[in-house]
Amino acid sequence: MDNNKKKLSLLVCGGAGYIGSHMSRMLSDHGHEVTVFDNLSTGYSKALKWGDFIQGDLRNPDDLEKALSSKKFDAVFHFSGLIVVSDSVKHPFQYYDNNVTGTLNLLQAMRNNGVDKFVFSSSAAVYGDPIMDLITENHPLAPLNPYGRTKLYTEEILEDYATAYDFNSVSFRYFNAAGAHPDALIGEAHRPETHLIPNILLSSIDQGRKLKIYGDDYPTPDGTCVRDYIHIQDLCEAHLAAIEFLETSQGAHSFNLGNGNGFSVLDVIKAAGDVIGRKIPYEFEPKRDGDSPRLVADSSKAHKLLNWKPRYGDLREIIETAYRWHKNPAF
Amino acid sequence: MDNNKKKLSLLVCGGAGYIGSHMSRMLSDHGHEVTVFDNLSTGYSKALKWGDFIQGDLRNPDDLEKALSSKKFDAVFHFSGLIVVSDSVKHPFQYYDNNVTGTLNLLQAMRNNGVDKFVFSSSAAVYGDPIMDLITENHPLAPLNPYGRTKLYTEEILEDYATAYDFNSVSFRYFNAAGAHPDALIGEAHRPETHLIPNILLSSIDQGRKLKIYGDDYPTPDGTCVRDYIHIQDLCEAHLAAIEFLETSQGAHSFNLGNGNGFSVLDVIKAAGDVIGRKIPYEFEPKRDGDSPRLVADSSKAHKLLNWKPRYGDLREIIETAYRWHKNPAF
Repeated sequence: MDNNKKKLSLLVCGGAGYIGSHMSRMLSDHGHEVTVFDNLSTGYSKALKWGDFIQGDLRNPDDLEKALSSKKFDAVFHFSGLIVVSDSVKHPFQYYDNNVTGTLNLLQAMRNNGVDKFVFSSSAAVYGDPIMDLITENHPLAPLNPYGRTKLYTEEILEDYATAYDFNSVSFRYFNAAGAHPDALIGEAHRPETHLIPNILLSSIDQGRKLKIYGDDYPTPDGTCVRDYIHIQDLCEAHLAAIEFLETSQGAHSFNLGNGNGFSVLDVIKAAGDVIGRKIPYEFEPKRDGDSPRLVADSSKAHKLLNWKPRYGDLREIIETAYRWHKNPAF
Repeated sequence: MDNNKKKLSLLVCGGAGYIGSHMSRMLSDHGHEVTVFDNLSTGYSKALKWGDFIQGDLRNPDDLEKALSSKKFDAVFHFSGLIVVSDSVKHPFQYYDNNVTGTLNLLQAMRNNGVDKFVFSSSAAVYGDPIMDLITENHPLAPLNPYGRTKLYTEEILEDYATAYDFNSVSFRYFNAAGAHPDALIGEAHRPETHLIPNILLSSIDQGRKLKIYGDDYPTPDGTCVRDYIHIQDLCEAHLAAIEFLETSQGAHSFNLGNGNGFSVLDVIKAAGDVIGRKIPYEFEPKRDGDSPRLVADSSKAHKLLNWKPRYGDLREIIETAYRWHKNPAF
């Protein structure tokens, strides 16, 4: 712990999930007092090693009131979102209910208990089809599915809360979070797994599991989709920086979080092959609705205002940490 | 009652309010079976003369379940919105809670009870600052305040529900609803009154009540804001047409409802003076935030697809019906 820094009491909603557990651990490693709020619907109780745990659901205002009144929190991190785009198209109610109504409930419990600092997991999905090569925060906001709309609505609600209630927030528009803590005690585990790097690694470990690539004729150098992969530890460090930023900055702020490098699906498969030491087989499937050819972040606003930069630039390094976890996952 | 038409069972949420009570009455006059759902927070129990009444609140899913399961409804009209723009800026939680979460609750109770036809009160506020002289439904959607955002979010949610759940809806983007039923048994009564025509009439009746005009240097012919006034009976007839439209049309549809004529604040004051038979004094106040200089509808989509046209074109006629009510309001 840096002794110059104040020890804070922080609530991590969704702290049993992939990003939330890495965040809880980092906050704890920095000497802060962590409380996790999670309904364990997709999170893992085995990931709850850092801080206190309160089991509860965003859709239940009483659960939130109990959590928020249990201590005097300095700020709240909100990772409790439903995140599967295709599910959001099939089940929009669940997405609006959990991600919008649930967030309104959380914000209300915060206001009831005098907590006015909030860090929100938004998404590059707020942009829709990109019209910029490197996407800045000024890119038009035009989400293509209910998932993306729940993220945009929350950001706009946070702007209205800043105006009305002096409520201060940072929304992070994640590009592709990837990798695991270097010691591999925690890592990425979604069920079902919809993310590329875990799926590559899982297919390399379980030979019966086929690796599918959706689309081979996108207007990209090799025809497969290009994405921006940011290491989970880098992503969490930006959240730490956001807490400091909110000590002195009022209002509602949105920042991209990405690496600024675009890698195609085939690039990632090749890099994973290098890490594992063997070629990884794959097969092509038809394109999926709503996949953009290319999503790469310009994160210079975060560099500048949060004094943050990603440490992991090399794709192999990112995959290496993920592979360490996937070889022997604790959950 | 037109004997060729099927008698329908219809739920009118917000049926004790201005538009909802006129709608309930018109539906009843057409031989349909009306049930009103209202929390009476801004509506009037004296306006509940048509159909059954269930007192309840959108924010209480149990209230909605009770209402929706009380009969087999053919369709639901939703007028239960909070509508004061300036309040929405000061109290965004109330607006998101009632207008978005509340609507999600209503839609969920409908789905639970097998009702899949919905007519929603949206608003021209979804457009934000107009970039067209006559606004069509293709105008960019860029609301300027939480009120307008709650309307846009609901429209987008309805699109997602059409895709996911085969849920069919019409959203009406109201311009300025005005006037009263010609027999003046019901009329417009908001407390506080924020609408222009009632305020003009109230100031003419109560000489102590000053009529204020916000802004005299807008880029309009006389410097005051120009709006499109549509008579309440015309507006309700479009809703009747929507029910027929939904018998054969799938999906989520949005329509402007306006007259297509722009009248400035001074035009309206002049016309009201003609109706009342004396000049109406007024004073200028500074502009308010978020008032657009001009909002006038192109309603040709509704003319075409709903086979609907407003009957009241003359502003004096509209004000005349309002004046009949305001001279001797029943509530």
